[in-house]
Amino acid sequence: MEFPDFTLDTSMLEEAAEPDPETTYDLLILGGGPAAMSAAVYAARKMMTCAMITKDFGGQVRETSEVENWLGFQNINAKDLADSFEEHVKSFDIPVKLGTAITTITKEKDTFLVTTDDAVTYHSHALLLSTGKRHRPLNVPGEKEFVGRGLAYCATCDAPFYKKKKVVVAGGGNSAFTTTLDLLKVEAEVTLVNAIKGWQADASLVERVKRAETVNLLDNHQIVKIEGTDRVTGVLVKDRQSGTEEHLAANGVFVEIGLLPNSESVKDLVALNEQGEVVVDCASQTSIEGLYAAGDVTTVPHKQIVIAAGEGAKAALSAYDYLMRKSLI
Amino acid sequence: MEFPDFTLDTSMLEEAAEPDPETTYDLLILGGGPAAMSAAVYAARKMMTCAMITKDFGGQVRETSEVENWLGFQNINAKDLADSFEEHVKSFDIPVKLGTAITTITKEKDTFLVTTDDAVTYHSHALLLSTGKRHRPLNVPGEKEFVGRGLAYCATCDAPFYKKKKVVVAGGGNSAFTTTLDLLKVEAEVTLVNAIKGWQADASLVERVKRAETVNLLDNHQIVKIEGTDRVTGVLVKDRQSGTEEHLAANGVFVEIGLLPNSESVKDLVALNEQGEVVVDCASQTSIEGLYAAGDVTTVPHKQIVIAAGEGAKAALSAYDYLMRKSLI
Repeated sequence: MEFPDFTLDTSMLEEAAEPDPETTYDLLILGGGPAAMSAAVYAARKMMTCAMITKDFGGQVRETSEVENWLGFQNINAKDLADSFEEHVKSFDIPVKLGTAITTITKEKDTFLVTTDDAVTYHSHALLLSTGKRHRPLNVPGEKEFVGRGLAYCATCDAPFYKKKKVVVAGGGNSAFTTTLDLLKVEAEVTLVNAIKGWQADASLVERVKRAETVNLLDNHQIVKIEGTDRVTGVLVKDRQSGTEEHLAANGVFVEIGLLPNSESVKDLVALNEQGEVVVDCASQTSIEGLYAAGDVTTVPHKQIVIAAGEGAKAALSAYDYLMRKSLI
Repeated sequence: MEFPDFTLDTSMLEEAAEPDPETTYDLLILGGGPAAMSAAVYAARKMMTCAMITKDFGGQVRETSEVENWLGFQNINAKDLADSFEEHVKSFDIPVKLGTAITTITKEKDTFLVTTDDAVTYHSHALLLSTGKRHRPLNVPGEKEFVGRGLAYCATCDAPFYKKKKVVVAGGGNSAFTTTLDLLKVEAEVTLVNAIKGWQADASLVERVKRAETVNLLDNHQIVKIEGTDRVTGVLVKDRQSGTEEHLAANGVFVEIGLLPNSESVKDLVALNEQGEVVVDCASQTSIEGLYAAGDVTTVPHKQIVIAAGEGAKAALSAYDYLMRKSLI
């Protein structure tokens, strides 16, 4: 049997045509994670004309180290899995616009108009929003300045850089605790700072972290500033009960306070829930005819690779049915 | 990277423990297709006690020859894919009861009771129905007698046996037409018999079949009997307009008149739609608390491997949340 070659040929990427602003595609796919890629495979096999607009290929899969729950693989390197997805998509002739953000999405009669941050507008009869989620920022002074210079949102990617260093982790849920465990594995000295009272993580995780000797837990404390010169040197935290402030020395700060759906571009177009997730039904249909959504950006629970891939496939096939029904294909 | 070894070690199967009727499992999984297998992987990784009851491993995947839409594989042999799924499940210590049919399912307080056709009853706090679909039978004399002796429900499996033979295909939808194309590839002489007036298949498929020289299309004709001695020798068809009957000589009959959901065991327990599919919401929840459903047996549209796998994962995680919420785990 032929197994995908994981030595990614990036020359293919340069060769992939860009979407054509003069064409009205059957389906435009916004995003490049598992939902978007699975949708692209299904759309291509249905002979739909389609194009992708995405920041990158792989989405959050590339922030993970190992995957053990992609059916058929007891253990696979996340990068290899993302590469195999990418190659599958690239085996079809799908134009891709990379590294672009969406600014506005509107609908005129049966046509969606998608404008990117370089002021180009693309057209399609059906649209798939699979733009995923992003890390919620602290929104404090110093945060933006130090991203990549001591401030990180992804322990899987960056924990290895903090071997035997002092690190502050912001958060109190499962992500903050697993990040702490990742950092403890590289012998970091961790201070967990939780802006609310009480840890929200699973009890088993809290117990494991509490047993570690190089951990300091600061409950009900707020990070008010990221401090540093060239790189992060510490944080200023405030005890929310007493109001007293304290400087904590740190080589790194990991922000793990949740995820936000990338749904801003459709907020005036479709129904969102309170968390800003796009409301979909079991056929990946949003509240607007012709507009589908799949993956982490939606209300579908349990953010997992195989679930996103399934939802993406469903969305592409639902879009196909819609275009057939409306005689747009 | 480690790629699953597709040389299936069937000794593992014999070694797998049978479910214990004295145990109340966190989750019982009914079925063995992609939805069931993905659910098993997720349940095992959540440390839920779980067991599977299924006729076989692989479900309809094993009726397919090649798969080109399982994300990450541009083309994979369906048997290899099913084997890799099976091995993934077997890498966990999950008791499996094979070759058994479910007779009844009831719920008493927070416990589901599942009785199999050998009169053993198993117990669980959450239940996943992922029993798939089966081929709809013609329900005519001779059908049951000749299964496997000229009467077939799966062109992918059996078309190669009918090289240059005369074959009758029952049906008028996409399945009947793709079966006809499969048979034309092996140079069979095909008569398509459609019990209703008008072909329901996609126009492009109908056109392709009509262009073939060795095809005979009988619209609005009903197969009333499968004829034969040791093996199929023909069918008796009735013209539904004139009422006249005619014998058609045939070496084989392929029945492609749709699929039926295997939902009989829960028909008095949960809400089904008109087609008998189990109604689920976007979290794979049925109308009964603690009972989940995933894959082809449900109302979720587009029956595809990756969709079923996603739905199975979702169901297992939803079951886990339910058990946590009810303090049953």
